[in-house]
Amino acid sequence: MQIVRFSGPEGIAYGTAESDGIRVAQGSPLVEWEQDTDTVVGYDEVDLLSPVLPSKVVAVGKNYVAHAEEFGSSVPETPILFLKPATSVVGSGAPVVHPPDTADLQHEGELAVVIGKLARHVSAEDASRFILGYTVGNDVTARDLQRSDGQWARAKGFDTFCPLGPSINTEFDPLEPMRLTASVDGEVKQEATTADLVFGVAELVAFASRVMTLLPGDVILTGTPAGVSTVRPGQLMEVEIEGIGTLANPVIAGRQST
Amino acid sequence: MQIVRFSGPEGIAYGTAESDGIRVAQGSPLVEWEQDTDTVVGYDEVDLLSPVLPSKVVAVGKNYVAHAEEFGSSVPETPILFLKPATSVVGSGAPVVHPPDTADLQHEGELAVVIGKLARHVSAEDASRFILGYTVGNDVTARDLQRSDGQWARAKGFDTFCPLGPSINTEFDPLEPMRLTASVDGEVKQEATTADLVFGVAELVAFASRVMTLLPGDVILTGTPAGVSTVRPGQLMEVEIEGIGTLANPVIAGRQST
Repeated sequence: MQIVRFSGPEGIAYGTAESDGIRVAQGSPLVEWEQDTDTVVGYDEVDLLSPVLPSKVVAVGKNYVAHAEEFGSSVPETPILFLKPATSVVGSGAPVVHPPDTADLQHEGELAVVIGKLARHVSAEDASRFILGYTVGNDVTARDLQRSDGQWARAKGFDTFCPLGPSINTEFDPLEPMRLTASVDGEVKQEATTADLVFGVAELVAFASRVMTLLPGDVILTGTPAGVSTVRPGQLMEVEIEGIGTLANPVIAGRQST
Repeated sequence: MQIVRFSGPEGIAYGTAESDGIRVAQGSPLVEWEQDTDTVVGYDEVDLLSPVLPSKVVAVGKNYVAHAEEFGSSVPETPILFLKPATSVVGSGAPVVHPPDTADLQHEGELAVVIGKLARHVSAEDASRFILGYTVGNDVTARDLQRSDGQWARAKGFDTFCPLGPSINTEFDPLEPMRLTASVDGEVKQEATTADLVFGVAELVAFASRVMTLLPGDVILTGTPAGVSTVRPGQLMEVEIEGIGTLANPVIAGRQST
């Protein structure tokens, strides 16, 4: 099942993606919902939104060997966690705003885990029971600010810096080597499989939930492979994961403010 | 006015602290509320909760000269931001859980700014219009994990690691040199005035809101002065700011889990 959230003719709703359109659901997959309504709306009638509104986005640094190496470091012994604010989340199709504060905005395509049930001190063996499904994420980063600040919250925390979508695949198996690519204006920059993660999804859910309670809808970004590159206003970032879909976001220029 | 949030005989509510008890309000100071109800409940009838439930806590590193020096570094040229998850927030009186993951849990007493209105690209001159008031914060930190991870999200993000309270003072003036102390079992460890901040409150609101939209109820922790020290289960942390009140939290041992 591919869960989407969208703004359509009758407002914002969840639904399931089908070949002829979106079957509109009632309620939320995070609480209680009824999927089998008779209403189907066409893809051209709706704007897709981020498939969840997380209370927090927990992200993981240096979780692909080749990406750690491209920054001259090795893979850490335990996952390195950082947080992106909920205010940075946007859906597929929404513009990512290039703030004037950075001279080096970069894409980071990632597999995103969507938590389905409150998770605290969950073991790796039990982790899958707490996962609703998987979506595609782009951990947009102002690389120069990341380096100069040391802490990554600002460089990765601007509004619109966390595209998620287009849908949540509830049957995705993170242990299968599914192809992940990130491209800019159609040119592939990052390519890996989801099986290349150093710390796997179950380990990450266990590790994060040992620290902070994960709430329904919270997202874990599992890290990005090698090949990150600079984007400029006017370009299109696309992150695709086989079996989930393509997260596409144009880059636009932010205002030269204050 | 001193705003509190509490769990009382009739459930969770906001109110204002008065000499003879808490005057129960209807609604929320972040949306719309009526303060002048006739109901007053005694302090012994309620449990104080964190005075807000922030969607995010934006914190600032190295914002007192002497604290930066005690870690062998200097004050940065721009504020260093990091995030604490909403799941780390507790009120005054609530226990802070010492996880088995750390051998060096430390208190960090801080002035906390409570945002009252959605703030985005706010100038320092206008910042006060977006502030509801000020409370006391304790940026509890696992110092060993902070050093080993490099990124601070885990070390500062465990559940219960962000005590806030006891109340929000809406008339507090951050430009007045008000005394801030943090003590452990009654012994003063940190002492400074709120006028010693390197980057002042207005500057911090401007800086943070240039990056991420601040929502009503969001909190900015303004940094901690010198004197941070290790606490152990069984000890009591108290952070007091003149004009606001005392935030008191006992430390208890976490379970030796998974």
